Amino acid sequence: MAVVVQDVNRADPVVIDGLARAGVATVHEAQGRTGCLASHMRPIYGGAQIAGSAVTISAPPGDNWMLHVAIEQLRDGDVLVLAPTAPCDMGYFGDLLATSAMARGCRGLVIDAGVRDIRDLTAMGFPVWSRAVSAQGTVKETLGSVNVPVVCAGQQIEAGDVIVADDDGVCVVRRAAAAEVLAKAEARLAAEEVKRKRLAAGELGLDIYDMRGRLAEKGLRYV
Amino acid sequence: MAVVVQDVNRADPVVIDGLARAGVATVHEAQGRTGCLASHMRPIYGGAQIAGSAVTISAPPGDNWMLHVAIEQLRDGDVLVLAPTAPCDMGYFGDLLATSAMARGCRGLVIDAGVRDIRDLTAMGFPVWSRAVSAQGTVKETLGSVNVPVVCAGQQIEAGDVIVADDDGVCVVRRAAAAEVLAKAEARLAAEEVKRKRLAAGELGLDIYDMRGRLAEKGLRYV
Amino acid sequence: MAVVVQDVNRADPVVIDGLARAGVATVHEAQGRTGCLASHMRPIYGGAQIAGSAVTISAPPGDNWMLHVAIEQLRDGDVLVLAPTAPCDMGYFGDLLATSAMARGCRGLVIDAGVRDIRDLTAMGFPVWSRAVSAQGTVKETLGSVNVPVVCAGQQIEAGDVIVADDDGVCVVRRAAAAEVLAKAEARLAAEEVKRKRLAAGELGLDIYDMRGRLAEKGLRYV
Amino acid sequence: MAVVVQDVNRADPVVIDGLARAGVATVHEAQGRTGCLASHMRPIYGGAQIAGSAVTISAPPGDNWMLHVAIEQLRDGDVLVLAPTAPCDMGYFGDLLATSAMARGCRGLVIDAGVRDIRDLTAMGFPVWSRAVSAQGTVKETLGSVNVPVVCAGQQIEAGDVIVADDDGVCVVRRAAAAEVLAKAEARLAAEEVKRKRLAAGELGLDIYDMRGRLAEKGLRYV
Amino acid sequence: MAVVVQDVNRADPVVIDGLARAGVATVHEAQGRTGCLASHMRPIYGGAQIAGSAVTISAPPGDNWMLHVAIEQLRDGDVLVLAPTAPCDMGYFGDLLATSAMARGCRGLVIDAGVRDIRDLTAMGFPVWSRAVSAQGTVKETLGSVNVPVVCAGQQIEAGDVIVADDDGVCVVRRAAAAEVLAKAEARLAAEEVKRKRLAAGELGLDIYDMRGRLAEKGLRYV
Amino acid sequence: MAVVVQDVNRADPVVIDGLARAGVATVHEAQGRTGCLASHMRPIYGGAQIAGSAVTISAPPGDNWMLHVAIEQLRDGDVLVLAPTAPCDMGYFGDLLATSAMARGCRGLVIDAGVRDIRDLTAMGFPVWSRAVSAQGTVKETLGSVNVPVVCAGQQIEAGDVIVADDDGVCVVRRAAAAEVLAKAEARLAAEEVKRKRLAAGELGLDIYDMRGRLAEKGLRYV
Repeated sequence: MAVVVQDVNRADPVVIDGLARAGVATVHEAQGRTGCLASHMRPIYGGAQIAGSAVTISAPPGDNWMLHVAIEQLRDGDVLVLAPTAPCDMGYFGDLLATSAMARGCRGLVIDAGVRDIRDLTAMGFPVWSRAVSAQGTVKETLGSVNVPVVCAGQQIEAGDVIVADDDGVCVVRRAAAAEVLAKAEARLAAEEVKRKRLAAGELGLDIYDMRGRLAEKGLRYV
Repeated sequence: MAVVVQDVNRADPVVIDGLARAGVATVHEAQGRTGCLASHMRPIYGGAQIAGSAVTISAPPGDNWMLHVAIEQLRDGDVLVLAPTAPCDMGYFGDLLATSAMARGCRGLVIDAGVRDIRDLTAMGFPVWSRAVSAQGTVKETLGSVNVPVVCAGQQIEAGDVIVADDDGVCVVRRAAAAEVLAKAEARLAAEEVKRKRLAAGELGLDIYDMRGRLAEKGLRYV
Repeated sequence: MAVVVQDVNRADPVVIDGLARAGVATVHEAQGRTGCLASHMRPIYGGAQIAGSAVTISAPPGDNWMLHVAIEQLRDGDVLVLAPTAPCDMGYFGDLLATSAMARGCRGLVIDAGVRDIRDLTAMGFPVWSRAVSAQGTVKETLGSVNVPVVCAGQQIEAGDVIVADDDGVCVVRRAAAAEVLAKAEARLAAEEVKRKRLAAGELGLDIYDMRGRLAEKGLRYV
Repeated sequence: MAVVVQDVNRADPVVIDGLARAGVATVHEAQGRTGCLASHMRPIYGGAQIAGSAVTISAPPGDNWMLHVAIEQLRDGDVLVLAPTAPCDMGYFGDLLATSAMARGCRGLVIDAGVRDIRDLTAMGFPVWSRAVSAQGTVKETLGSVNVPVVCAGQQIEAGDVIVADDDGVCVVRRAAAAEVLAKAEARLAAEEVKRKRLAAGELGLDIYDMRGRLAEKGLRYV
Repeated sequence: MAVVVQDVNRADPVVIDGLARAGVATVHEAQGRTGCLASHMRPIYGGAQIAGSAVTISAPPGDNWMLHVAIEQLRDGDVLVLAPTAPCDMGYFGDLLATSAMARGCRGLVIDAGVRDIRDLTAMGFPVWSRAVSAQGTVKETLGSVNVPVVCAGQQIEAGDVIVADDDGVCVVRRAAAAEVLAKAEARLAAEEVKRKRLAAGELGLDIYDMRGRLAEKGLRYV
Repeated sequence: MAVVVQDVNRADPVVIDGLARAGVATVHEAQGRTGCLASHMRPIYGGAQIAGSAVTISAPPGDNWMLHVAIEQLRDGDVLVLAPTAPCDMGYFGDLLATSAMARGCRGLVIDAGVRDIRDLTAMGFPVWSRAVSAQGTVKETLGSVNVPVVCAGQQIEAGDVIVADDDGVCVVRRAAAAEVLAKAEARLAAEEVKRKRLAAGELGLDIYDMRGRLAEKGLRYV
């Protein structure tokens, strides 16, 4: 049951970087309001905005052994994604693992558990999105798997899927859909720019989106 | 059932600005330790300290249509207050709505649900106090109401009540009581200034507040 | 039942300051992965890293009277530790109490409840680790105890134990073990420094820690 | 600030008993899907289904003094409703208070806090809907108010409002609307009876409610 | 994006019934400790023990329209599985929908949201495992999908997968693995029977499982 | 660090049985409102009311190995108490371990984690108070300790302390204080009996406890 899948396809790096620029909210709208991880996944510091290919880890609660195994599988531009097999907020990851991951080109960590050495990780510029901050250490006794499909914070994630993360949280984009989602996201950004200007000038969404008729039809009454 | 109340009385702007300066902790003490919203209402960035008149929104879970309706009701110095009709942490509000609200003079948003585009909102200086940060988008299908009484994060809030918000959270002051609460808050601040100096000089609260007798009477023993 | 224990032994100040430099994650590892308070204990601002001798407070929910009593017991270099006798997120502590505590040499507060006046505390540089931020005020009606053993956020803490706190949370070190834990922590830091360099150079933990054999023995398969 | 309002209007007892028979889910639908208290309000035993007039209590956290005051205000057919002024799960109420309340004709307790003596209350047939079960006792030191408006588990409740409670939770009906809500609830129950027979016979809601056209129009595809 | 997949393969009914008899704990052990839904999924009444083929529903928060669509897809022996697209505890399902589902041969409902009409469902013998009990009603405005893969309470579930549920919670077995898992579960049950007798006779697990040597080797000391 | 303490003193069995009869609420009041474990500790079935001497277990998250070790330490009349070293809701304990524990005279289990095989445990009459019900299995890889002091659900518990548990939850009584607490509990029960009769006859607590004067003095106003 404990396997490391080594042969993982990644999306086009240009597409991945485009998704990073679009950001979580836009990307998730562009793919039909899907893909957001649960809102308890918060960044350890503000301002990071990344995208990368998922190297997934299924790990037992309180056991971070598989992180060492996963780091060997990293390629430049990847993001580590760890899902414990039962809820756990212990600190699986700290500055030594981050040093190693950065040396392999890793762009960040998404972990539905705890992380520690927050001050060092912040100083290093290694972003993490996690359920908890916890210094509580883990053991290295039980196997898990690397690059198998996992459910992380409510979303199924497969190795090579694109992870987008920023101050709003984390979103997953299927590898095969990445280019199409980017195209839609960029169209959306362009359209938003036009709307932003009109709204800033004082026009109302009620008028821009032509909502008044439908509101009246549904029965909204002004009193 | 779905109504927009258009005729809302506001408190005196001078009083509102005074309450903002006093801040949440002092204001809530000044009105007898009442009015605090639940402590899960946290600011998206530190340092904002505002007060404004509530434009209230009762909205279905996962549906942000009424925000567009409410923005039309905003006057300069107002604060949007959204209470979902069932618990929900989805992202009802982002930078486009904030652009529109700011264009109408809105000072911030208090929402017992989720908000997104945190980085943009921070850059714009539009403060939000929310239960969650979430990129998960909403629909525009079901009506709600604007400027009706709502229960938001455990407090009943009516349109035109004064909302005070800072790093400590959010507090509501009844419109009719605003001037009286401000007077008490300012008296309290003046009294605190005197105490602060004595405490900073090393005097003890036990002595300043004359607590030793009552402690002994209740049975406190020093061993 | 309500007592104030006045005769409390503290650890060596030099040891305490050494533990502060080592930080929570290292200290807790050095004492066998024990002592971490629950991960809901978060700092009100980032970057503080302290250690001090615990002055413990067992207080009723919603009653901060004992904080005034405890402040008199503070000596230079102490940390206040408050555990409510039932779960409570009200704001027991604000800038006036902090002013008084700082005047007595207090280095910070660890409270499994709420704190308020966040902006002032941040400006004063008085660090707090708490379960909640809440402006909701408390009363002064019911006695508690000072410098008795308490359970705070899942850890038993006795007066004079060493509290270490930083961005990763809070850890308690038994007073009698403080010197030994510091020695182990410093050895650990030195060893980590060597590993950090090797990891930064691209070596893998799998090799540095010689894990490959044991992983294979447990049945890990590469596919 | 601490008051006991003695002059409280109640709804018609016949209407109240009708609402009890209709039950929470039907009543809340009949008044436009409003009035449900939060879902953390659970019965201490299954099968109770009651309605009664609210005697409201605003009580400090961990202080049950006002329950004694409120019991004197009970009339036959009333329901006690307690809202703490800050979140609290302590055991405010047990078998002695229940004995006293039953002697005054009280039909049950709705409390957004804790209750104890579960076995005795069950044996006595005194139903309670609460946030928690907790033996942790309270004090009698701080005043609160009786028969003032409270927010309990997310709903504003006024003295004399009708409380409906069963295995599904708790719902509040405004006193003035009770008769109209009952009429709608009874109409709803009659209509449901017809639908139930058709559904039991194997007809589909898709057909009974004529949903197929609207589903297709919105874009549902069968594959 | 909104689709109803009509062509779903089911596992062998004999295998499904065998899995029901084995129960959740044994089945999840038999497949390598995988497949358990999160522990917040609790039965509305005790004693039910079922298995069936999943008819999956991806539904918007607060919108139960797709349940009507899904019921048409039910075959005898199926179990409905509903995952909202964002966290939601509203009452999607009650006695009318249960009447309809039972008429189609449905064995129960697994829903990571709320359910209502608990008393009726219990009387009907229609078991439900849910996150919450809530009378709060839903709307029928927004499409979702039926028989697409969903993540429900932390597990990916596909249409036709076998759902096993009892007082311990809910477990999913991949359709293709059902027969193999049943074989392992039955072997496990037989082995447990032998152990149960030895343990009941007073033998220790330490001896039956031959643990003493390994415990000593790891360093366990008896004092 | 991993030890099994074998030499544990127990309280007098007659006292222990008396505490069981008194029940959790009365015992905790008798010892000054102390000793209650957190309210998330709930019985797996209603009606059990026990007391016994604690055999304590400190176990890693997701690892139930030490339960086997602890069972050997059980004597007739003991209660197992398990505290994980980090929050965990996995199912550490089921019917096989219960069979073994019952064979050794164990009266029940208190576990700040998960339990499974609920139906079997209920049929066997083996009561458990736990944080969660979960079928999710554990491993046997990492040592813990037996009969060392633990913090379980917010209370420090030492081996040989008396555990009292019933439908209200769980309370710990220090071994050395057990006889004195029992005496106070029995006095309390006798006094309650008198009050119960007066309250049942319609007398008010306001009069029995002579509260009216103090309420007026504190400022309670009747309007």
